Formats: sequence, structure tokens, C-alpha cells
Amino acid sequence: MKVLLYSLLCPLLPHMISLSAAKLLKANGLNTVVLEARDRVGGRTFTVRNKETKWVDLGGAYVGPTQNRIFRLAEEYGIKTYKVNEQESLVHYVNGKSYPFKGSFPPMWNPFVLLDFNNLWRTMDDMGKEIPREAPWKAPHAEEWDKMSMRELFEKICWTSTVRQFATLFVNVNVTSEPHEVSALWFLWYVKQCGGTMRIFSTTNGGQERKFVGGSGQISECMARELGDRVKLQSPVYRIDQSGNMVVVETVDKQTYTAKYVIVATPPGLNLKMHFNPELPPLRNQLIHRVPMGSVIKCMVYYKENFWRKKGYCGSMVIEEEGAPISLTLDDTKPDGAVPAIMGFILARKCRKLSELTKEERLKRICDIYSRVLGTEEALHPVHYEEKNWCEEEYSGGCYTAYFPPGILTQYGKVLREPVGRLYFAGTETATEWSGYMEGAVQAGERAAREVMCVLGKIHQSQIWQTEPQCLVPALPFVTTFWERNMPSVGGLLKFMGVSSFLSAATAAGMLAYKKGLLPLPRS
Amino acid sequence: MKVLLYSLLCPLLPHMISLSAAKLLKANGLNTVVLEARDRVGGRTFTVRNKETKWVDLGGAYVGPTQNRIFRLAEEYGIKTYKVNEQESLVHYVNGKSYPFKGSFPPMWNPFVLLDFNNLWRTMDDMGKEIPREAPWKAPHAEEWDKMSMRELFEKICWTSTVRQFATLFVNVNVTSEPHEVSALWFLWYVKQCGGTMRIFSTTNGGQERKFVGGSGQISECMARELGDRVKLQSPVYRIDQSGNMVVVETVDKQTYTAKYVIVATPPGLNLKMHFNPELPPLRNQLIHRVPMGSVIKCMVYYKENFWRKKGYCGSMVIEEEGAPISLTLDDTKPDGAVPAIMGFILARKCRKLSELTKEERLKRICDIYSRVLGTEEALHPVHYEEKNWCEEEYSGGCYTAYFPPGILTQYGKVLREPVGRLYFAGTETATEWSGYMEGAVQAGERAAREVMCVLGKIHQSQIWQTEPQCLVPALPFVTTFWERNMPSVGGLLKFMGVSSFLSAATAAGMLAYKKGLLPLPRS
Repeated sequence: MKVLLYSLLCPLLPHMISLSAAKLLKANGLNTVVLEARDRVGGRTFTVRNKETKWVDLGGAYVGPTQNRIFRLAEEYGIKTYKVNEQESLVHYVNGKSYPFKGSFPPMWNPFVLLDFNNLWRTMDDMGKEIPREAPWKAPHAEEWDKMSMRELFEKICWTSTVRQFATLFVNVNVTSEPHEVSALWFLWYVKQCGGTMRIFSTTNGGQERKFVGGSGQISECMARELGDRVKLQSPVYRIDQSGNMVVVETVDKQTYTAKYVIVATPPGLNLKMHFNPELPPLRNQLIHRVPMGSVIKCMVYYKENFWRKKGYCGSMVIEEEGAPISLTLDDTKPDGAVPAIMGFILARKCRKLSELTKEERLKRICDIYSRVLGTEEALHPVHYEEKNWCEEEYSGGCYTAYFPPGILTQYGKVLREPVGRLYFAGTETATEWSGYMEGAVQAGERAAREVMCVLGKIHQSQIWQTEPQCLVPALPFVTTFWERNMPSVGGLLKFMGVSSFLSAATAAGMLAYKKGLLPLPRS
Repeated sequence: MKVLLYSLLCPLLPHMISLSAAKLLKANGLNTVVLEARDRVGGRTFTVRNKETKWVDLGGAYVGPTQNRIFRLAEEYGIKTYKVNEQESLVHYVNGKSYPFKGSFPPMWNPFVLLDFNNLWRTMDDMGKEIPREAPWKAPHAEEWDKMSMRELFEKICWTSTVRQFATLFVNVNVTSEPHEVSALWFLWYVKQCGGTMRIFSTTNGGQERKFVGGSGQISECMARELGDRVKLQSPVYRIDQSGNMVVVETVDKQTYTAKYVIVATPPGLNLKMHFNPELPPLRNQLIHRVPMGSVIKCMVYYKENFWRKKGYCGSMVIEEEGAPISLTLDDTKPDGAVPAIMGFILARKCRKLSELTKEERLKRICDIYSRVLGTEEALHPVHYEEKNWCEEEYSGGCYTAYFPPGILTQYGKVLREPVGRLYFAGTETATEWSGYMEGAVQAGERAAREVMCVLGKIHQSQIWQTEPQCLVPALPFVTTFWERNMPSVGGLLKFMGVSSFLSAATAAGMLAYKKGLLPLPRS
């Protein structure tokens, strides 16, 4: 009996999914095959090696505390992590000026803006607490929040344009799409299942804390090596027939595979690359047309020297300027200080606009903004450039992950990982912890593998979902201060001021009236 | 030299597209093949013949004035039209009561609601006038309107919940999706390119005025007969390779076709069923994941007698009740009065919910609401039932047409019909007049065919887009009255009342002051 896994068409994270599923099944004595659409493993992770860069992660790269599964796999293969440089100051570029800062979010000096900023994160995290990570469509306000885009929600929460603009960048950076494109319910769920606004956005103690020495692609490569010739490259699946006793799968390179069960480990939208017999049930048939992948170009600019560190900058830039191609950067220098480089993301609306330029034009614009933000002409003289536009990948559809437009999560979410006959669904999009990340890919792959093991009677249903023990990378809690918890919102402050002005005025009027003898004396 | 057309996977309207393109190319001496995914022609039109119904259109059926191309084709094949019965009263069911009426929209009796209702249609049509039908992304307010969903727009325009609810039904009925799912820019464009709110929604003088005697499927069938063995059924395309001099197309039934040019006549989202070499350009690669098809079940209930006409009802019902499966019905009795039937649509949110019931349960609920709306138990005793859930069709993805969620039209719209190498794009979604309808399918197919003829040097570029002469079906203008044009909105009225109260009060105060001698006399 054969269990067939194909990561088909399956993007970098999903590839990790299918490989981790295959690994687990193999470990349990099951015969598996992994069908990979591309000529390489890794999917939405993609490590390139060359003279200029030694190695570079053009796809998923960052890992951080609470991502215990991916750290477990890395440890197993002896792949080490290192901390992304955040020693010196980060820099926030806004209204044409650079402001160095330390910490996760740039500080806000205007007191109104500060109240507004504090209230934004607090409100998003509080709303997240209401949303079940395994079934966001069951949240008490699911319907209401799903009808809203994040843009609508920001218009309700934020009083200042400064905060609204930063909130837009927050959506752009985390899900490579625009606030008006995504459902508020979905985005709040997404942030929540990554551990909240601080965990998802931070470098130190957050999702961007570390990278793998030698590149993230090694994990898939190690798993693939372990699986040997069970992994078939350049084998995009175009047909899945489960009309008989076995599932018959055909690939574009004209091979036919037969299996008892199949794990489909692509992002949901890439199920569309396959022709199904029988057809998928109506809700799944429509879901897969409704969950597009985000838009991002990952850009690495290499320099002779690590000039930003000398100027007291760590290399992290948060850039708010409509004309700037890049919205967020991180230092991408190797852990030993070799190959100085800055990683930057071209995101969402900017990605679609700049897709039409040449590589050279993009590099020029990127160096230009780096030189303005870092205040030095040195940024204008790169020695090498690497980029990857994930929007052009047929077998990813975009990166980092799928997003849910308004209205879709409540209407279709429940079929996201519901098996169809002998088909089971993995893909980081089906995860409940760090969905959209490598961690989510591993969770999803292992869960789908255990679903198959369960249906084969090898494990009990209660064993399908497993929590992961804490790994060696420490996860510190994010502690909020009394003030952060209790500062009013701008609206709250205005209301308070309004009420108190009214009370003061009323008291003053009362005092005056009393003095003038217009009021009777209180009985004493 | 061969021009290959495949309507692949191509839904009912698109099928019409590919056939009309093939017909035009053949007439110009070009060698064409039509590859159809299904075992029948027609795509999103689907005429079933049986004893109980004689014939029934389970897909696209309605045609009306200004749809000149589809009438031209029908005339050519001698296919007659008849008027959908609207002799007796329509009925509007709201708050549990039935209100018979005549005309396109139900009348509103509350004067505030009337102002609000009038202002809704006027505003939507006025906004539509700003939107270029061939390039809605170039509208002066394109970005602003595209960031909004129709729900957001309705919240801005409508003052009363009565009108907001009706507006929701208007979106449900016209584009089989929810107001919060669709971009305001896209929906306003859609209504505009159908001729406005009255044209799109009306039976008499509107999009639902007529049906074809014998069913709409005949048009595709006649074209297919004309094309003979050039039409290959059960030939879903899964691969398009244009890496060489010719385009090589492979089908799931393991045939290979070679052509100089290919017209892809599927809805944009179904391009995903094909594996492309080379990959599609980034914007098209992402567009096709972002334009889902609407959700509808078309339901025909058959009765022994045409009991509603006897009660003074024509069979058109506009049903506003959350628990009712159906939102809109039309009489579906044959033109000679035979086979009494009512056609009803289960739309958008209701379609997704009711997809999970059995056919029998749906029929029961439908008859139940018909009996309440028409006020008679006769509706509880159907003699036959036909239904088609378009959400389960792999090669349609849904019906009637694709919708654009917020943000997509301005970012990706311009690549909708932009050729990719030797691939040209048809599909009713690419039309500029009655896109989403059979008419749009014919416009798109013929335009794509002329694009190929142009690149072959057979016609000049200026001949690609052609206007269609007025056919015999008269199109009366919708005349608005002075009152409809000039009645204030609720907001306008309140403002006017506020200003005039202020002026009256000020005048009164002035008069009083004057009388009391507090103001100096005007100089005389």
C-alpha cells in the first residue's frame, strides 16, 4: 500500500509540508512518494549559492521564538541558527526624515499619536483574543469582522493619519497585501496565531529573530536526501482521479502514480492546477478561487562594507514613503560579518507597480532610498544584487501566503482542511500556529500525515493534533506596562475631557449660583 | 496554418465566446479547432430536454434590449425569442407581507424611504457615468472607489435600513455575490456597462425581457453544428507550451494540438487549470487567482397549473427575508402557456448555506416561501423540480460571472485582455458591453478573433473593436422624471430643513428684535 504525497506545484513552505509529512509517514513504515512541480525542493523557501553571496535565502528565511517545530527539524539535521543583527539602532523614515530608535515599534512623540498608536496594538490584540485559532469563523463577532476590510477597521480604530499610515505598513509587511484587500477577521486571526502584534513584527524575540546558517533551503534538502528517490522533481500534477478504489495521479511529465491516500500540500489556490474526478464539492471548488497569494519581491543589495553599522544603524529600516520601493529592511550580512548586505521587501501595491521595471531600475531606486534613509552616498554603490519576484512563480502564485478577502473566511473557512474522499490537505495555509510561515508548513504536513495514519488505524483520532514541546530557543513573554494597558484611546481621552469640562463648567456654574444666593443652602 | 481556440474548461458563456470566435475565423478562411472541456457545448448556458419540462435553461437564459450581438446570432439560426410573462402584478415580499406592484422596482411608501431609494439609483448611475466601460481603472475616482466594497458605499449613500437591505438584494441578484465581497468600482462599472440600474434589473425593457424559444443552448449547438468536427468535446486543456514557434496544447484526454495562435476563452480564474510554458507574466499570474466566480443555484419548480396568474400575479417575486432560500423569481411557463413553472435564484450567502442540503430539502423550503409570498397552498404541491448548483462545476467555478474583490480592478484590470505571446483572451469577463452575459461572451469572442485576424494582417487594428447595429428588438430609453432627477436625498432634505429652520428662527428673532426697537431702522 502506498501513500502518495505531492507537493505538486507546491510552493516553498508547502514543500516543507509535504516533505515533513513524507518523513513522518516513512518513519511509521508507510510507503510514500513526493511529487514536486519544480526542478528543486523547497517551494517558497529558496536558497541560492554563488560566489558573490556564498548563500542567500530568496524565499522564506526568518524564524523566531515559539516556532518550535521548525527548530526541532533544524536541530535534527544539525542546522544552526544565528540572530539577525539588531545591535545598533533601527531607523524609522517618515515625512522625509530618519529617526533612529530601539525596540519593536518606532516611538511616537506627539502625545495624541502615542495614545492612538498604543490603542491600535492593544485593540488588535484584544480582538485577536476572541478568535479561536483553529476555527476563526466561530469567533463571537466573526460575521461582523469578516464583512469589514482592515482598512475599514483602521478607520474605526485610528484617530490620526500617522497611525493609519503605519497600520497600512503593518499589513503590507506581515501579509504582503493591502488593508482594503483583506478581511479584518482573517488578518486579526493571522496576527493572533503568530502570537500577537509584538511577536509577529519584532526581530528580537519575534518572527524575524533568526536565520539558518547556510540558508533555510537546507531543511527541505536534508529531508529530500533522507527520502531519496521517493521525491520526484519536475512532476507537476494535473489530474487526480479517485473514481476507483485507488487514487490515480497524473503528472505533466506523463507519469502515472497510484496510491491509497493523497496529501495535497499546495496553497489552496493551486489546487486549481489539477483536474479532479469526481469534481470537488461545491464549497471547496469555490474556496480555491477565493484565496489569492500576496505580492512581494525580495531584494538583497550587497555592499563592499557594512557601512550602516559604522553609522550606528543595525540595518533595520521601517520606511514610510509612497515613492519608496521598499517598506522594511533587515541586515543580511553573514553571522561572521562577511558579505555585507541589506534585505528589503517590495510589498503589495508597490510590488505590482514595480514588477514592470527592469531589475536594474529596481536596484537603482532601492539604493536611492537606502542612501536617503541612511544618510550616506555609500548606499549608492552596491557590489551585487539578488532579487526574487514571487508573483511570477506559477507554482506559488505569490508569497508569503494566501490571504482571505472580506467575506470568505466565514463562508468557506470550514472546508480549508476538510478531507475530500481520499484527499487530505496540508499547506501552511491550513496551520493554526504560524500559518504562513515555515513553522505552519511543518505543523500542517505532520497533521495531515497523522490524519492518514489515523484513517489507516495506526493512531487514534485524538493523536492527530499534537502540541510541540518548547525548544531551546527561548520565547520571552511580551510584557505590557500599566500605562500601555490603561492609557486611553484618543476617543476615550476626548470623551473624558468633554465629560470633565462639562462637569467643571457645571460645578463652576453651581458655585456661582450658590454664591449669588440663587440656590437653597444644603441642609447641614 | 491553424488557429486553435479552446473554450477548455470553458463555462457556458465562454463557450459561446469560443464558438463565436471560431465561427468568425472560419468565415474568414482560417482553420480552427475548438477544445471544450465538457461533454457538451454551451458552457454556462445549459438547456436540458426531458418529458417533464420539454426544455429548460439551467444556465444563462435571459436576453433583452441593447444585446444586439446575441440577437443577431439567434436570428441567423432562426431561433425566436419570447417575452417573459410580466402581464399581471409583480410582488414584493418584505417584513413577512406581500405587496403587489407594477414596474421595475417595488414602490416605497414612506416618504423618507422614497427619497433614499430614489437617491440610491440616481447616485449609482451618476457614479457609473464617470467610469470608462473599456478601462474602469482609469475613472477619475478609480482608486478611492476600488478600495471600498459596495457595503461601504451603501453605508455612505443610504440613510434607511429598508433601502440598504434592498441594495443588498440588488447586488445579490445582479452579480451572485455579497456587497462586502465586491469592489464598489467594479460593481458600478458592471451596472454601467449593462446600461444602468434600470436596464440591468428590469424584465420589460431590461436584461430579463426575453428568453429563446427552445432554450439558449441552441445557439451554441447551432454554431457547433456549423463547425462540425472542429469542435472537440471532453478535451480539457492542461498544458500550453509556447516556447517554440508554434503553440502546443495538451488535453487531459491525451491529445496534442499545434496552432499558430490560441484564444483562451475561459473565465480568467480557469486559466489556472492550465500549466504554462513559459510562465505567465507576474500580473496575469496573480490576476487569475483574484477573480472568483459568483455563487448561484438556479431552481425551477413545476406545477400542474399556472395558479399565480389566476391570483393576479405574473410570477415575478422580489423576496426579502433572511430565512427564504430564493431572492428573485420569474415566470418560466412556456410561451404557449404549457408547462407552468417558476424560476428562482438561490444567491450568494444563501447559495453557500443551502449547498449542503439535499435537493429535496431545498425544494421543500422553496415551495414553502412561494406559498407564503403568493398566499396559497397550491405552491406546496409541485409536480416536478429541476435545479443546477453552478458552484459544483469544476469548469465554471460558479455563475453567472467573475467578480472583483476590493483593490483588484485598479491593480490588475489592465492585463485582463492583454495578449501573452500567441495567447489571446476572450471570455464574457473581458467584454465591455453586457460583460457577464451571453451578449458579452459574443462581443469578447468576436473581438479576440479579430485580434488574431489583425496580427495575421487580414484586418487593420482599427477594425478589432466593432459596434453592433441595433437589432429588431426595440430598446426604449429609461426616462427619469423631473422629480426623480431633483428630489433631494435624505441627507439633502435634512440639511435643507436644518438650514431653513435656522433661517426661519433667525428671521423670527430679527423680527422680534425689530419690533422691540432693538435694531436700528433700515434707512429708507
